[in-house]
Amino acid sequence: MHQLTGTAGALYEAIRDLPIVSPHGHCEPRWFAEDAPFPDPAALLVVPDHYVFRMLYSQGVSLEALGVPEPGRGADPRAVFRLFAQNWHLFLGTPSRFWMAYVLRQTLGIETPLSAETADAVYDQIAARLAEPGFRPRALFDRFGIEVLATTDAALDDLAHHAAVSESDWPGRVIPTFRPDAVLDPSHESFLSNIDELGRSTGEDVATFAGYLAALRARRGFFKARGATATDHAIEVIETVWLDDPEALYQKLRCGEAAEGEGRAFYGHMLIEMAQMSVEDGLVMQIHGGSRRNTNADVFARFGRDKGADIPIAVDWVRGLDALLNRVGNAPGFGLILFTLDETTYARELAPMAGHWPCLRIGPPWWFHDSAAGIARYFDQVVETAGYWNLAGFNDDTRAFLSIPARHDLWRRGVALHLEAQVGRGFFDMRDAEIVAPLLAVDLARDAYRLGA
Amino acid sequence: MHQLTGTAGALYEAIRDLPIVSPHGHCEPRWFAEDAPFPDPAALLVVPDHYVFRMLYSQGVSLEALGVPEPGRGADPRAVFRLFAQNWHLFLGTPSRFWMAYVLRQTLGIETPLSAETADAVYDQIAARLAEPGFRPRALFDRFGIEVLATTDAALDDLAHHAAVSESDWPGRVIPTFRPDAVLDPSHESFLSNIDELGRSTGEDVATFAGYLAALRARRGFFKARGATATDHAIEVIETVWLDDPEALYQKLRCGEAAEGEGRAFYGHMLIEMAQMSVEDGLVMQIHGGSRRNTNADVFARFGRDKGADIPIAVDWVRGLDALLNRVGNAPGFGLILFTLDETTYARELAPMAGHWPCLRIGPPWWFHDSAAGIARYFDQVVETAGYWNLAGFNDDTRAFLSIPARHDLWRRGVALHLEAQVGRGFFDMRDAEIVAPLLAVDLARDAYRLGA
Amino acid sequence: MHQLTGTAGALYEAIRDLPIVSPHGHCEPRWFAEDAPFPDPAALLVVPDHYVFRMLYSQGVSLEALGVPEPGRGADPRAVFRLFAQNWHLFLGTPSRFWMAYVLRQTLGIETPLSAETADAVYDQIAARLAEPGFRPRALFDRFGIEVLATTDAALDDLAHHAAVSESDWPGRVIPTFRPDAVLDPSHESFLSNIDELGRSTGEDVATFAGYLAALRARRGFFKARGATATDHAIEVIETVWLDDPEALYQKLRCGEAAEGEGRAFYGHMLIEMAQMSVEDGLVMQIHGGSRRNTNADVFARFGRDKGADIPIAVDWVRGLDALLNRVGNAPGFGLILFTLDETTYARELAPMAGHWPCLRIGPPWWFHDSAAGIARYFDQVVETAGYWNLAGFNDDTRAFLSIPARHDLWRRGVALHLEAQVGRGFFDMRDAEIVAPLLAVDLARDAYRLGA
Repeated sequence: MHQLTGTAGALYEAIRDLPIVSPHGHCEPRWFAEDAPFPDPAALLVVPDHYVFRMLYSQGVSLEALGVPEPGRGADPRAVFRLFAQNWHLFLGTPSRFWMAYVLRQTLGIETPLSAETADAVYDQIAARLAEPGFRPRALFDRFGIEVLATTDAALDDLAHHAAVSESDWPGRVIPTFRPDAVLDPSHESFLSNIDELGRSTGEDVATFAGYLAALRARRGFFKARGATATDHAIEVIETVWLDDPEALYQKLRCGEAAEGEGRAFYGHMLIEMAQMSVEDGLVMQIHGGSRRNTNADVFARFGRDKGADIPIAVDWVRGLDALLNRVGNAPGFGLILFTLDETTYARELAPMAGHWPCLRIGPPWWFHDSAAGIARYFDQVVETAGYWNLAGFNDDTRAFLSIPARHDLWRRGVALHLEAQVGRGFFDMRDAEIVAPLLAVDLARDAYRLGA
Repeated sequence: MHQLTGTAGALYEAIRDLPIVSPHGHCEPRWFAEDAPFPDPAALLVVPDHYVFRMLYSQGVSLEALGVPEPGRGADPRAVFRLFAQNWHLFLGTPSRFWMAYVLRQTLGIETPLSAETADAVYDQIAARLAEPGFRPRALFDRFGIEVLATTDAALDDLAHHAAVSESDWPGRVIPTFRPDAVLDPSHESFLSNIDELGRSTGEDVATFAGYLAALRARRGFFKARGATATDHAIEVIETVWLDDPEALYQKLRCGEAAEGEGRAFYGHMLIEMAQMSVEDGLVMQIHGGSRRNTNADVFARFGRDKGADIPIAVDWVRGLDALLNRVGNAPGFGLILFTLDETTYARELAPMAGHWPCLRIGPPWWFHDSAAGIARYFDQVVETAGYWNLAGFNDDTRAFLSIPARHDLWRRGVALHLEAQVGRGFFDMRDAEIVAPLLAVDLARDAYRLGA
Repeated sequence: MHQLTGTAGALYEAIRDLPIVSPHGHCEPRWFAEDAPFPDPAALLVVPDHYVFRMLYSQGVSLEALGVPEPGRGADPRAVFRLFAQNWHLFLGTPSRFWMAYVLRQTLGIETPLSAETADAVYDQIAARLAEPGFRPRALFDRFGIEVLATTDAALDDLAHHAAVSESDWPGRVIPTFRPDAVLDPSHESFLSNIDELGRSTGEDVATFAGYLAALRARRGFFKARGATATDHAIEVIETVWLDDPEALYQKLRCGEAAEGEGRAFYGHMLIEMAQMSVEDGLVMQIHGGSRRNTNADVFARFGRDKGADIPIAVDWVRGLDALLNRVGNAPGFGLILFTLDETTYARELAPMAGHWPCLRIGPPWWFHDSAAGIARYFDQVVETAGYWNLAGFNDDTRAFLSIPARHDLWRRGVALHLEAQVGRGFFDMRDAEIVAPLLAVDLARDAYRLGA
């Protein structure tokens, strides 16, 4: 790990050990409800991490050989880990390598450098660690200094694990996030049955649009009661539209009579309905835009979603959010955080928009851009127009629980390097930098997600 | 203010005190015609500066509280200034903070650092300064070392203030720029009445397209006689098209029978007509493309234009200018300066285009990108393909007269830093850098706008 | 020339003198077949170099004065060279200046700095050099340390020069590349007659689509037998589509009855056919996308293709390659190298795609972006997501044979600077950098193009 020195070193030291606020991510609440030991090293570090196996796949390693779940198949975890170790060089220059090296050394305390030769030894050391009580989910959560961790949960989820956590004697704060894509977006494969389920779970009559809205409102209330402070929405092509007669389209959709373009319009309308409900109930709205999902049809058919074939596309936030913002964008108390995979929109669209609309905050670099250079480009392109107070701090956005400290550390290093450059260019002095550093590390995230202190 | 040292320091020193050439901006000619003292600090520095109040608005400060003009309302200037001072931290990292700090210390000579606590004291000090004769418009113009200042004026403007200036005994050169959007673009709210007014003011019969063209030619001549060397055109979506029968469409527009797409085509045609007139009369053509205006309908309805809700969109200069360039792009003597808010077009489109077409020059970083990092990105992305001689030097493009020296200073610092890096990488030596530095600071602007020496 | 020091210097020294692998470019095979002296300095360095004369044209120098070939015209080479020397300053900051300075000093051994005053002297020195045996094509090829040089050749080319080279006693490896645009793309001006010629040259019956495919397969085999390891395809708007009935469209095209959109669809289909043939015959597929050709109609009409008016446009690799990748993207052994002029696709599209699809590699910075800053942006934006092993190393892509060492040198400097920064930031150590440096300089190109060692 690189030692930061000088101004950057001083700024980094000041924020390195601050609590971790993790307002958006994909950890499983079950881990903290059950507090069972994590399984074997491959199942923990390789198999579920699409950042990792996509790279191996790109160099000709089959997903089967990596143990990526396929009905009726299995793979020896030690063999999987060996394959990973043999290809460790492929990650040179990528954040995955930084995170993994940090996890191995800092989090798991393993001194042996990873290589094809050491694969088995490292595997055994990790396995031994995972058997220790200090490496169970709750103990790690505490050791990581996590103040709050938000998961991402389907609108129909019963949140039983969240309930179990909050009813336990463990004080860790694990909160849900309301993710209703599957009941809002008609292009979802089980949209109609999801709506029926939504009706059943809320007791609302979803045969009418009004009942459908009431059911959604009820689910939002349920999530809020379980601690949620935010919703999250994925959309490939950014499009919002306020329909004059959503009821009519809703009925067409329920009869399966709507055209594809109409489904998109309906989703665009529903995002505005969600925004309006956010004004009512105070849940902060997140939009993750511009990821084209499952672009490898064969991999999708065989292995399902989230297999490394989600690819960014260019987006148009200005026209795409026009209808939404012109309906609720000036409403007091409304909070909307935008995440982009199209970096060209940082300076061109998001920073000017966030520098005007009271509701908007720019989310941190997302996914492929949550990296050292990605973080540098983000600061370079958003700060001059949006300032710091229109940013949403950091999200780790990960399902790799062990990597959370590594990811926050990379961000905090990026913050320190950015502020060092600002001080060096004379744009502000060290005192200002010392104000901005903890803001970026923790406070903006707390504030943007209304998480309290 | 940061002290540049080493190579950058030497290059900066050599250009820091060169005259200011300001070939494009939005100062009011009345100031220099009347030479009255500037009003109170809030009315000078906060209320009219959409860079400033948009940021405050984005953080929940109402435009009313900032005294942004709304029919029948007013605000106490001292209260407005206090509000600004209380939120001074919001500008950390933005060029507005650099400019404002420069204006306060360098231009107004105020040593007290701005803060919530010092708001009233700073207000009083500024007010005292503004009452001094040395802080009237003409005295400041002289002190700033402004060689020439171009304003931007509607095609129907009578240019009386410009006349008053040139007929006065004050030698300052304040010239108009011909901005005909409102008589060329059918989407303008008063397009038809503007055309009638155009006919009245020129004595041409605008009932025919030929008469309309003659009237435009007459207005261009009028501006040129008042010292104009350039025209300026705003266009949201870059589109030029040469119509076979513009007369027919002109008549449809006058009868209010044209579709919206036709209005855009008409404007696209008229930009080519303007380019052809530029070939005739030698006025340099400027196109500012890709700003989507007034995206906040509520703010627009209540406060009007230029209220911080103009947001950039992606543009396509290649296809968009195809018709124009293929009609006049090779014409000797034609000058066309392009301004973009879509930085992705720097390296992809503008630099290759300017590196081929004899008429083209790339305008300096515009609006949100007129900032330290924006300037660095500009040089990084245009120079290698376009070289230096296809650039148009610097524009301050401001309505904030007091900030003109600050803006040129930021640019000159950016020039020095860029050239230092070039010398450091061995791409050219100090002697070359000493040639390029004044070129970028002053000479390219003089040359591109045909302003003489 | 700048002296690299420290870490960058050490890394550069280690790769500076490695062999040159040039897997994609536009040198003429005739040079190496005939081994005749190069003509005069203007004809060698100015007239054919569209990087050079486009810049002069952009500053008002006519193409006629530069001797750019126009039917029935000529220009005195000494006068052309003088004109170039007088305008040498225009290239400050561009890679053309770096390359040319390198060629003059390093390659031709000329110490006199180029300027208006020295034009004739430098001209004479170059002319003298070109008359020496050591400056004939083969001698230079050997002196440059070229391991292999690929040319780019029309599908109908008889490859006689390649045959002459390989049958000669000179051991230089000069291989062809199969470039079939003119027989695949219906928008090509002589598409139909090219197909007839394709039939004649292969003996296949191109009256049917099956015969047309067979003829293409035969030509690929012919190229492969002459040493080709790759194909190359240019496409303006990236679009691939798998047609259900290509035969029907083929017949419409042959009758001249297809609409323009259909021509594009046919080409989009044929790219997939080419990809499928690549799976069969192992030729690596290259796609150069997003250059809009001949945008200056007047220059095109008078001087023809490749006259500096080819301008990049924004592209969409994700949707554009969807059909192709979903047909053959997972096929073992398929190799596809993508070249973009739209740098926004580096991080957004190409790196995520190359980091997933087994077939994909990202080509090096192309054309306008093959420059110091362009190379830095490339590494900054591709490595974190794609790693190093999904890159295709370097291409010089030049028709300026003398500039090949200069171009590889600029790349190798860029590699050293990039790796120095990586080491400096602690992302990997010097040992890793020493592994990656030769990979980027030579090995990835050898591997991606299947050129052996």
